[in-house]
Amino acid sequence: MTPRGAGVDGLKTPRTTHKRLPERGSHDFDTIAAVLDEALVCHLGFVVDGQPYVIPTTYGREGGTLYVHGSSASRTLRTLSGGVPVCLTVTLLDGVVFARSAFHHSMNYRSVMVLGVATPVEGEEKLLGLRAVVEHLARGRWRDTREPTEQELKATAVLRLDITEASAKVRTGGPKEEPLDYELPYWGGVVPLSMTSGALVPDDHVLPGVDVPPYAADFRR
Amino acid sequence: MTPRGAGVDGLKTPRTTHKRLPERGSHDFDTIAAVLDEALVCHLGFVVDGQPYVIPTTYGREGGTLYVHGSSASRTLRTLSGGVPVCLTVTLLDGVVFARSAFHHSMNYRSVMVLGVATPVEGEEKLLGLRAVVEHLARGRWRDTREPTEQELKATAVLRLDITEASAKVRTGGPKEEPLDYELPYWGGVVPLSMTSGALVPDDHVLPGVDVPPYAADFRR
Repeated sequence: MTPRGAGVDGLKTPRTTHKRLPERGSHDFDTIAAVLDEALVCHLGFVVDGQPYVIPTTYGREGGTLYVHGSSASRTLRTLSGGVPVCLTVTLLDGVVFARSAFHHSMNYRSVMVLGVATPVEGEEKLLGLRAVVEHLARGRWRDTREPTEQELKATAVLRLDITEASAKVRTGGPKEEPLDYELPYWGGVVPLSMTSGALVPDDHVLPGVDVPPYAADFRR
Repeated sequence: MTPRGAGVDGLKTPRTTHKRLPERGSHDFDTIAAVLDEALVCHLGFVVDGQPYVIPTTYGREGGTLYVHGSSASRTLRTLSGGVPVCLTVTLLDGVVFARSAFHHSMNYRSVMVLGVATPVEGEEKLLGLRAVVEHLARGRWRDTREPTEQELKATAVLRLDITEASAKVRTGGPKEEPLDYELPYWGGVVPLSMTSGALVPDDHVLPGVDVPPYAADFRR
């Protein structure tokens, strides 16, 4: 099931409805997909014995489905493989908002929250999920890698999470001040933020004649 | 109670012990504090009716205590004010690790996970918490703001989370390959990542003679 045809509010449920500042919220699939595609890692929340855990992890998207992976031996993946409720959240930071009042300081950001139950996949879909995770790091990378061996596949758990209950939240622009505060002699505005890449660090084993691939030479998010 | 004197493993419990790749883990307070101070937002996990939620939010640190804040009217803060278990996680992305095998692709990162129960604070500590949150965005900002009014304080909930059960996880360096994979004609190495600030965007209300403060002009993390 792809939520793409579900319309603007197709991913909206009582649990993903924005009660505060609804003007910052969206349930549009394309908006949600764009944020998911730009972010590099997600924060995945799950519950063990009533205690929530939030772990950063990479992921990939294939249409209306997200894939996460990890070691089959890890506590996290063993827990998640039981088919438990999860919350997958990604956040892109776009700026620090300096207001003249302490109260109105804020961040500009784009975030997405996906709720659901993650389920383990095997066989062809497992490979598809791993491909999505590698391609998420850099589009085009999969064809420049050795594919996983049987043993590596066994050591890896891949989980799928369908994007059927999700929301995006976006804040843009300058500080929202109380009118009287504009008379204060403090600077107000935004320091824009972005994730940028630095000079590449090849390892000591790059063979002669192997060029830096364009997705690494010109890495962008 | 400050965990600073607790020694290298003072924040270690069965729930924060690294079972996988323990060489990447640490329970050292100074390591944990440094990551918490560099990150801008955390991802806060909590549970409602068995469903985990993970939300991005700003925070501040004062010694061995973290403060988060939000609207008193929000679902999130109402839930958290009941004294429920939370997991506060921050992640700094330092690079994308390109391996010759799909299996060994990775990220370089520094992350911290703090487990505990968040409790609401009032009065003097509430103001201290808000100060910590603003100062976390930019050291020195608090003195350049109008402090919260009584009404603003009522509209804001501030929660404290003591850093008594926590862990850090760090990955650095290039890809770890299977020895035979070094013979493959694929590029291997790291694309370093960092959060950088762009040209400031002052709003339309900055009074004549008000200079850009140094913490904004030279914003760094």
